[in-house]
Amino acid sequence: MKINYLKAILNKKKCSFALFYNLDSTNYNPNMYYFSGYNGLGALIIPVKSHPFLIVPQMEYQRARKSMIKKVYSMEKKRFLESIHRTIKKKKIKIRNIAIDDSNFTLNFYKHFKKQFKKIKTKNISQDCVKLREIKAEKEVQILRKSCNYADKILQKAIKNFRKFKTESEVAAFLEFETKKLGLKLSFDPIVASGVNGSEPHHEPANVKIKKGFCVIDFGVKYKGYCSDITRTIYVGKPTKFERDIYNMLLKIQKNTINSVKNNKKCSKLYEYVVKSLGKYKDYFTHGLGHGVGTEIHEFPNLTLNSKDKIRNNMVFTVEPGVYFPKKFGIRIEDTLLFKNKPILLTRTSKDLLII
Amino acid sequence: MKINYLKAILNKKKCSFALFYNLDSTNYNPNMYYFSGYNGLGALIIPVKSHPFLIVPQMEYQRARKSMIKKVYSMEKKRFLESIHRTIKKKKIKIRNIAIDDSNFTLNFYKHFKKQFKKIKTKNISQDCVKLREIKAEKEVQILRKSCNYADKILQKAIKNFRKFKTESEVAAFLEFETKKLGLKLSFDPIVASGVNGSEPHHEPANVKIKKGFCVIDFGVKYKGYCSDITRTIYVGKPTKFERDIYNMLLKIQKNTINSVKNNKKCSKLYEYVVKSLGKYKDYFTHGLGHGVGTEIHEFPNLTLNSKDKIRNNMVFTVEPGVYFPKKFGIRIEDTLLFKNKPILLTRTSKDLLII
Repeated sequence: MKINYLKAILNKKKCSFALFYNLDSTNYNPNMYYFSGYNGLGALIIPVKSHPFLIVPQMEYQRARKSMIKKVYSMEKKRFLESIHRTIKKKKIKIRNIAIDDSNFTLNFYKHFKKQFKKIKTKNISQDCVKLREIKAEKEVQILRKSCNYADKILQKAIKNFRKFKTESEVAAFLEFETKKLGLKLSFDPIVASGVNGSEPHHEPANVKIKKGFCVIDFGVKYKGYCSDITRTIYVGKPTKFERDIYNMLLKIQKNTINSVKNNKKCSKLYEYVVKSLGKYKDYFTHGLGHGVGTEIHEFPNLTLNSKDKIRNNMVFTVEPGVYFPKKFGIRIEDTLLFKNKPILLTRTSKDLLII
Repeated sequence: MKINYLKAILNKKKCSFALFYNLDSTNYNPNMYYFSGYNGLGALIIPVKSHPFLIVPQMEYQRARKSMIKKVYSMEKKRFLESIHRTIKKKKIKIRNIAIDDSNFTLNFYKHFKKQFKKIKTKNISQDCVKLREIKAEKEVQILRKSCNYADKILQKAIKNFRKFKTESEVAAFLEFETKKLGLKLSFDPIVASGVNGSEPHHEPANVKIKKGFCVIDFGVKYKGYCSDITRTIYVGKPTKFERDIYNMLLKIQKNTINSVKNNKKCSKLYEYVVKSLGKYKDYFTHGLGHGVGTEIHEFPNLTLNSKDKIRNNMVFTVEPGVYFPKKFGIRIEDTLLFKNKPILLTRTSKDLLII
């Protein structure tokens, strides 16, 4: 996506090319994927004056050939950075400055990099990439819309079947099974947190019986590399009046927050609005209000107290207020939405308190 | 694990403490997990003269409390590195050098780090950690043994049910479902590569019909944070004599390689042995022969041509020769084994060619 925008940045920063890499098969470089559609091992080089290319280990060659990048070189058994250097020289690319993303560039790699590219200066384009990815292209919006549709469908299927599940990990396993069966990936390991476990926002579902009370289900898929993110909190058993009231208060706040999203609005204001609305419960809201989603599950904009971000057209982000009562329970309600002149919900599963 | 070993390293390197961190919920810091049993967001500090402690965002506090680390501090809404600095000062830890792992330390984090710890020198302990983790403690061996047992059981169940699956992604989904149902995690996204797809060692299973011919299934679970890794290649349909012969040749090479593992043996020699045994097929073997497994799926020792590693007691690693005929098919046979005076298979699923 948007390789021409990146080239404009490289030009401005007087860089000959941008270098992204991934050397760990369990890792993921969101920028490399964003610009290439390739998420395997290797390096992506985007020269300012010619076509981008990939340099990958021999074993990844065929996979890389299926990406958006037409030129793929196999690095054989040479050392990684030597291969990169050699290919760049072969292509007669003049090496001035090199643009790198310092959020996905380890100190260790930098050390080896400096040995190979001795006197070359690097320019950090981490923030530029993040800002570029923050505003979605129409094609990305379409993919994200579909990603959210899938998340909705799978979550609804899990909720429909909820009585059949005995343990938290069975629910999580079901969500994953339905995701993988469709050839999709997870955005993140699903959270299924029942009863007291719900008081931990990032609880890992365990092989334990589903407890009575609120059950937080936080889930999302990756469709064509693009994430969706939705949380629903259902109730197992019979809620007390207090529990119903808290749920409905949070739901009202979530809806009002979404409705108050406007062009140019400061994200910190949205966060402040939630804190203010929570009144005496504000200390039980222990995380950010939301985050952008794209090729990464947590992108810009950041909906937090200290955020400097503002809402713009074609941003896709979550709104997810929550309250967590230590050693008691937790509730979170989250949607992914698109802003395009107005807030448009991309996740559409019902938010009325579902009692099972 | 082995915090005292780490402290000895810190002493030798004149470091006041080691600092590990993870700021991305979709990321994983294997050293942080290794020393703490905690894999959430936050920082792990291991002072040379006192007990280790965690500093985590408020939302992760309860989860962190369940780790091996007894002291956990919540960082509230302060900036991350400020919180770390403040806590260290409060604890009156004298800051001399700080030990860091430069393979899990980004340039971006380093920049912020230098702002906070201005004139403090860092010492890289990346290799020390890797070397320390390479030799498994008895407790780790027990966990790895169990992790491999689980992988065996789940893989065998998938193979037994193989006729029921229509697509590659259904097989992958089944493997994951069985894993998650038991409250375990995956070591990596399972590879299910049928027919021509098997010629890509890292093929991503797609929502496509299982093709006739060889089908490579590469799978592993994480039990208590420790990985297992196994690959079996089965056959759908009726193999030709050539296909049978190639499979049996590879199997013989895999078994002979395992049997030739001895104390002090150079890993590069094991790799060379495979290449030599493959004869005219050697160019179709396009990846390393194996890797250590532990809290990370790829650890030391490295069984590659350029490896300097030698086999030692209590190493746990894979032996996984493969051949990949472009645009035709691929075969890989992989076991995880423990070396303890002799090679001991930890994965034990049958390796005879299974025809389905």
